[in-house]
Amino acid sequence: MSLFYQADISAGLLTGEEARHAAVLRLRPGDSLFLTDGKGHLSEATVTGITKKGIAYRVNKTETAAPRSFKIHLAIAPTKHAARMEWMIEKCVEIGVDQISFVQCRASERNKQSLDRFQKVAISAMKQSKQAWLPQFAEMTPFKNFLSTCRSSQRFIAHVDPANPVHLKDKLKPAADVVILIGPEGDFANDELASALDAGWIKVSLGKSTLRTETAGLVAVTAIHMLNA
Amino acid sequence: MSLFYQADISAGLLTGEEARHAAVLRLRPGDSLFLTDGKGHLSEATVTGITKKGIAYRVNKTETAAPRSFKIHLAIAPTKHAARMEWMIEKCVEIGVDQISFVQCRASERNKQSLDRFQKVAISAMKQSKQAWLPQFAEMTPFKNFLSTCRSSQRFIAHVDPANPVHLKDKLKPAADVVILIGPEGDFANDELASALDAGWIKVSLGKSTLRTETAGLVAVTAIHMLNA
Repeated sequence: MSLFYQADISAGLLTGEEARHAAVLRLRPGDSLFLTDGKGHLSEATVTGITKKGIAYRVNKTETAAPRSFKIHLAIAPTKHAARMEWMIEKCVEIGVDQISFVQCRASERNKQSLDRFQKVAISAMKQSKQAWLPQFAEMTPFKNFLSTCRSSQRFIAHVDPANPVHLKDKLKPAADVVILIGPEGDFANDELASALDAGWIKVSLGKSTLRTETAGLVAVTAIHMLNA
Repeated sequence: MSLFYQADISAGLLTGEEARHAAVLRLRPGDSLFLTDGKGHLSEATVTGITKKGIAYRVNKTETAAPRSFKIHLAIAPTKHAARMEWMIEKCVEIGVDQISFVQCRASERNKQSLDRFQKVAISAMKQSKQAWLPQFAEMTPFKNFLSTCRSSQRFIAHVDPANPVHLKDKLKPAADVVILIGPEGDFANDELASALDAGWIKVSLGKSTLRTETAGLVAVTAIHMLNA
């Protein structure tokens, strides 16, 4: 059965994109559907009517998904080509991520980042993978501002120190919230790295390979799940 | 400096796609370049001439990359949309994979799979991530044939048994070769799974989320690296 995204399930009416999705699937009064608000709720509902305003439904049952024992916050300098971020977001949502923040670094190839398209990709990936959690997106923030506002108790910055590579797996405490910061293709500037370390961030390696920004983001999210499994 | 792929470095002449890449970069006699054969060799060379046949070079120095202590063999039922396999291959090459085999399952949406495009994607990803290893690709093989010819000592099949989920991390022996088999979107058929288990394959979970085929392939490769880090 198909899953629909509805920010407020109690509204009783699918509109816009989701109503079009229901129309493509030729849902009719009496048909069943699933709804999620992306905040952990999953409802089973029945179509009660189809009007110009949208698809009306009645909720029969709502379940609340148990939240994970750890929250993953991915902070990343967006790539020049939005398509690379889009697939990373799709995959991160499939695997599970709670927050995605965009950070503007010295070497960033982008100073602006529209979130609309990313939110659509995330909704689509959540529906596809039958999940009930949608990540929160944060607007692009300059590096220093991001450092000064990030309050997570476990803060990692992905940076390979060739003299002393320390893998994320040797630093991560399981069952605790974590933020991981991934730099732009040109890497963090020296003073950016220095100010993160001053602020208590821990530099970690994600492995021996040279990864593209979007691959690093995905590897980090996968690794955090793995270390919590 | 740019890296070029040359299956036989001793040939002394870049041709075809790689010669076009060199032309785009406007390489001239006297310029330096790097070459790899995708088999662990990395050479530093100098352009000696440009002719209609290609870009001639002289090798100055060759280094041999140390192979990993474990080889990763990813066996996967290819997705209907080749683009999804292409990005998975790109990312797996960045992260590191030694062999990719395509397996035809009951629920497969493809019975044929051209390898040409995948090889190009792999070469491009290898060059981009400055690596010297290219995975070997194996033509599509029916599931039963694949099982009977696969000789790896560590054989895993990605399948979540809800009654008894066992994570890959609890089964993998580090520093040893490993093959992981990923099913089609419609999953393995019951008798396929049964015959794999009969043949000594171990069923493992890759985590709690429902993953697309290509995401599962990437998560598996990432996890194996992580568990060997």
